[in-house]
This record gives sequence, structure tokens and C-alpha cells, in this order.
Amino acid sequence: MIRTVGILGAGQLARMLAQAGKPMGLEFIFLDPAVDACAAEYGEHICADWDDEDALRKLGQRADVVTFDFENVPESSARLIESLCPVFPPPRALFKSQDRLREKTMMQELGIPVAPFEAVSSRPELAAAVEKIGLPCVLKTRRFGYDGKGQQVLRFQEDMERAWQVLGGEELICEGFVSFDAECSIIAARGAGGHTVYWPLTRNQHRDGVLAISKAPAFSAELQVHAEALVRRLMDHLDYTGVLTLELFLKDGGLLANEIAPRVHNSGHWTIDGGCTSQFENHLLAICGLPLGDTQNHSPVLMFNLLGQMPACAGEETFEAATNAAIHWHDYHKTPRAGRKIGHVTVTAEGEPGLRARAAQLAAALGVAAELDLQSVLRDDGARTE
Amino acid sequence: MIRTVGILGAGQLARMLAQAGKPMGLEFIFLDPAVDACAAEYGEHICADWDDEDALRKLGQRADVVTFDFENVPESSARLIESLCPVFPPPRALFKSQDRLREKTMMQELGIPVAPFEAVSSRPELAAAVEKIGLPCVLKTRRFGYDGKGQQVLRFQEDMERAWQVLGGEELICEGFVSFDAECSIIAARGAGGHTVYWPLTRNQHRDGVLAISKAPAFSAELQVHAEALVRRLMDHLDYTGVLTLELFLKDGGLLANEIAPRVHNSGHWTIDGGCTSQFENHLLAICGLPLGDTQNHSPVLMFNLLGQMPACAGEETFEAATNAAIHWHDYHKTPRAGRKIGHVTVTAEGEPGLRARAAQLAAALGVAAELDLQSVLRDDGARTE
Repeated sequence: MIRTVGILGAGQLARMLAQAGKPMGLEFIFLDPAVDACAAEYGEHICADWDDEDALRKLGQRADVVTFDFENVPESSARLIESLCPVFPPPRALFKSQDRLREKTMMQELGIPVAPFEAVSSRPELAAAVEKIGLPCVLKTRRFGYDGKGQQVLRFQEDMERAWQVLGGEELICEGFVSFDAECSIIAARGAGGHTVYWPLTRNQHRDGVLAISKAPAFSAELQVHAEALVRRLMDHLDYTGVLTLELFLKDGGLLANEIAPRVHNSGHWTIDGGCTSQFENHLLAICGLPLGDTQNHSPVLMFNLLGQMPACAGEETFEAATNAAIHWHDYHKTPRAGRKIGHVTVTAEGEPGLRARAAQLAAALGVAAELDLQSVLRDDGARTE
Repeated sequence: MIRTVGILGAGQLARMLAQAGKPMGLEFIFLDPAVDACAAEYGEHICADWDDEDALRKLGQRADVVTFDFENVPESSARLIESLCPVFPPPRALFKSQDRLREKTMMQELGIPVAPFEAVSSRPELAAAVEKIGLPCVLKTRRFGYDGKGQQVLRFQEDMERAWQVLGGEELICEGFVSFDAECSIIAARGAGGHTVYWPLTRNQHRDGVLAISKAPAFSAELQVHAEALVRRLMDHLDYTGVLTLELFLKDGGLLANEIAPRVHNSGHWTIDGGCTSQFENHLLAICGLPLGDTQNHSPVLMFNLLGQMPACAGEETFEAATNAAIHWHDYHKTPRAGRKIGHVTVTAEGEPGLRARAAQLAAALGVAAELDLQSVLRDDGARTE
């Protein structure tokens, strides 16, 4: 029986995993080089680099199972731990998702629709890729990109040189630019026996490359079935255990895969307050070999990411009573810093009209009403809350 | 702004308060004489007696607000802390509920229906009380009784002597025995400004004086209104802040108050998995002066207490998939001991028929189907889930 879960990384995802796991009776041990890692207070913190063999060995020996809140762990580190205890998701899934080229190639091979892409390692290869894919397109680093970092959009021929100046020298990928109708993500949990459950397809909106809002449910049953089939193909192929997130674009009624996160995901934080079982609970249940929980919404819900610092309106009597009563603030207990993800807030309602009104009020109080397009996120594309 | 919550007592109620409060950004500090108190891992643990003045002073100085998971703290201790920082619920409420005679007298004065009662401090007073109240009746210690401890039921004249042998020498109360149609409890949270919210009236079943199961929602809107009025009268009278529980008997369609718990309560543990906001969240919001959250069920739910040790079926593939998916196990991480409350488990469903089927399956797996009367707890007395 699994009692102690080891996590590589002790950021807010690890923190929320621990918050979900402690009531279930689990204990936690973390490896993270950051002295002030925000999950560390939930268990033992091995403060060491990702490739510190003694530290990795210690984690593998103390934990009954090891998982990740950070996917850019060196392959050799994951393999070392795997020699000592089970590691979920399987390191193979991690390595695929660490490299955009490998990831996109895998998806293409599995028949999962993606935008056209080309590997780029030189200036002439960039020119050839732009020629082949056409403009606009996006030049991205193959590794270590997140929250829009390591990306350059090319709209005109003359953007090529500028993009090359910024990113040239690294291994790159050039992808067709998708002028999407909506951004969304499907989060799924696959248990040890292959049983897979799916949360409702979530509608997302990014600002400056960083997730700003997520809303669920948001799409039709038809699109849900389509998205589930795509993510299932990936998970079965990888013989996956745990939670996996597939970010998608909705374009002309169809879905195009954008990227994979082999872990719990920011766009699934709403599952804590709006779902019968959270992504964190199900990830732990999956890696512990236990039966998975219900993934439907119990209430329609919208999440706002909180960047920089907790807003002044958090916990104040700022809203109408009905809105106040339906708000859940989450503080990751991280040191405030411009642009840093330091918390999130969710708002729920019994139905969509109530959610629309409350979300608008919350957006106004957060001061993000002008910069976000709440209207489009709250558009009803056939969503049904069971 | 409140950052650190002090708690007198560090048992499972404090543990679940901390589990609810940490995501909200709160920190915790506990005072509890038990070395292995199960909440202690969620913050600093001052391991000292309830009347250790240095320890109490330390708690009052470090915390921004102090609350209780244990109501039998000496009055002088609560007063000492109150001289250093706010204490909620108000110590006055604590003292009333520490003594069954004071509690019953207060309720009687407030016009809250209670069974007839008489103070008993001598053998002749016992005889006089039994004469006045009639048989059957219950002889109870005025203080420190819980989970049926310190109680003797008198059915025949000859029981008097036996009961006196067991309890005589302490301050006692003799109460009329209520042959109730149902046991229930109303849990309410009152905010700093007097705003009060109520969870649905919960149906309870005890075994050997210990709560065995709770189910919500369970009663008609009419009974809900009635119960809310009773608990509101108490909270307003006490100028209460925080969560208060009123245990009631349903008898011939009316409600009789049994006892008050000036805190979160075992019969409200279902609010974690079945309520839009848990009793633990709202208690913290109330004592921090923040707006209270929605108290309705998002799903009908039933809770089983787990005594002694976590059952073998916890987390196993023991149930039909639909039941498994709707179960949440809670492990208080306490050392197993016969009869000890070491955890609880909840089961939810979209509707009542689903809940009935799943609860029966869970009861069978827990091995409690024979000793509990699940049928009567699941009886529909006009409950509606919104």
C-alpha cells in the first residue's frame, strides 16, 4: 500500500497535489532546488539539483511512488529513480513532451491533427520552413519553453531575421500559426489498469502567453467525444498512468492539438471547486493504483489566474453577497513577483446565467475586465452541466 | 489582515480546519497537550496543558485570531488568550456549552424546545427528578461528556441506584428520555457582521453513543426553516462568530434541541465532499471576518464514520465502478485504537436513488450494514437538492 509519494518539483502543482493527498492519508517528500519552494511545507524537502544523484537516490528510497510537478527533469534522473521505485507518469511520456519536435511527430504519427511543422537548426532551414509552411508561422525552441517563453511569431518575411537573432543557436521548430476560434484543453486521468476518465473540455484564454482564464463546461458533447478520443490515443500509446493534459485549438469546428503536459495543469485548477473530483486527487489515485473519481462538474465554474501578488479584493466584502458566497481564493504562498503565478480564484454558480454575472463582477474587481475577452469565454457552445 | 490562526486543540477537527485554510493562504499554530496530535503537522505545535499560562500567552501572541477544536478548555485559559488577541467563537458560548445544565437553561430561556430536565447533586435530588420527569429518563454528567460517555439511561425505578453508583459524586442533570423519530443537526456559520448561513438539516444515526452516519439533504424545507430559526436565536443571543452545531431530535413532526457544539462538528464532515463550501472553510472565513461561502449541497451525500482503524476496503477496487468513483476517503492519520474516530468516508451521487444504491454497497463493504439502519437514514422526508 502506498503511503509516501515523492514529487520532483515542489511548486504550486506539487503543493495542490499535497493538499489533495494529505486528507487521503498520503505523506509527501519533494526534491526541488528552490530553497523557498511553496510545496515544501507539506513534507520533507530535499533541496538539491535535478541531477544530484544522492538526492535522487534518497527520494527513490523514501517514496513508494514518484511523480512530477515539473516535466523538464533530465532523463537520466528519472531513470535513476525508476531503478528504485515506480515512477508515474512513465519517464517515456516525459521525454516526448520535453521536446516539441518529438511531441508533434508522435502526435502526427498517431493521426492526431496538428498544425504543419518543420525542424529548424540553421538559418537556411528557417527560410525553407517558412517557405513550406507559409506566413504567419511561429518559431519556437524545442525545449524548456513555457508560458509563451522561447517563441517568436513571424508575420512578414522581414520578421525572420529578428526571430533568428532571438532564438537562433538553439534547436528550434517552426509551426504554422493557428488563428483559432477558441483555445481549449482536455484533461484526463488514466489508472493503472488503463481505465481512463476525462474532465469536461475546458475553454482557456491566454494573455501574453500565460493562461488567464479557464471555464468549464464550455463545449458540446460532440466536441467532448472528439477530444477524449485524441487524448486517449496518446495515453494508450504511452501506456500512461496519471493525469495528462492536451492543449488544443478549436478551428472551423475541428480540433488541432497544440501541446501536451504530462501532469496536472493550470487549466484544470477549476476542478478543485467545480468538479466532483479534482485533477490532483485523481492524479494521486491513479499513481497509487486506486480507483478514479468522478470527473464531471458539480457546478459550472470559471477560474482566473492571479499573477504578481494576491489582489486587494481577495477576501474583502467587494462583491454582491451571491458572488462573494461563490468565490474560492487560492493562495500558493509564494513570494510576490511581477508576472509570477501566485494564486488563482474560482467562481461557481448553479447555472450559466448566474456564472456570467458573477464572473463579470469578479473580473471587474480584479481589474482584468478590459484586457480579457470574458464574453467569448462565457459563450455557450452547447455546454451542459450534469 | 489575518494570516495566522491559533487553535486550542489539534485533533481531527483542527486538522480539517488547517486542510481547508492552507489553500486560502492561512498559517496555523496549535496548542494541545497530546504529543502525537494529528493536526500538529500543519503548523507549529505548542505541546502544553490547557492551563499552561506561558503556552497560552505564546499562542495569543503568535496568532492573529484564536479558535477551538475542543470546547472543554478552562474559562481562565480562554480569557487569558482573549486579553492578547481576538477569540472566536466568544468564550461565553464555550462556557455555556461546557455545562449541560447551563446550556439547557439557556435554551429554555430562549424558547427553544428541550426535553424536561432537572439538576441533580444528591441521591434525594435524583429521586425527586425521576419522580418529576418520569421514566424513562437519562442521567448525565453536566460536564466533559461526549460520544455517549457519562450517561446512564433509567428505564425502571431500580435503575436509579445503579446509575447513582456510576455517576454519583459529580454534578449531574436528569433529562427526559426522547424516543425520537429521527436524530438531526443544523450547522450554521455566523460572520463578524451577524450574517448567518445554514447547511441543510442533516440526518444522523448514532451507535453506542457515537455518530455513525450523517446524510444531507434529508428533510423538508419547512423543517429547515424551523431548525434555522432555533439555531439563529442561539447565535444571536451569544453574539456568535464562527460555526455552531445544534443537535436535535425530530419527534412527532417537531424539533427538540439536544445539545450545542460551539464548533465544527462530526455531522458536518459531509460538507467537504457534498457542499459548495465546507464547514471548515466557513468557520475560518467567519473568524477571519471574511464573506461566507454557499452552504447548499452540490450533491446528495452520506458520510460513514470510521472507527478503530481504516477499513481494508479503503481505496480497493471493492465496489462497482460508479460507487468507487463517488467515494472520498478521509484518513486523520491517527494511531489506530478500538473505537477511536480515525477517519470518515463520504459517498455522493447525482440523485437520491443513486445515493441509496451506492450507500448500501459501501455499508456492506464496511461491514456495518447489519448494525446500522441505513433505510431510515435514506428515507426521503421531503429533501430537495438544489
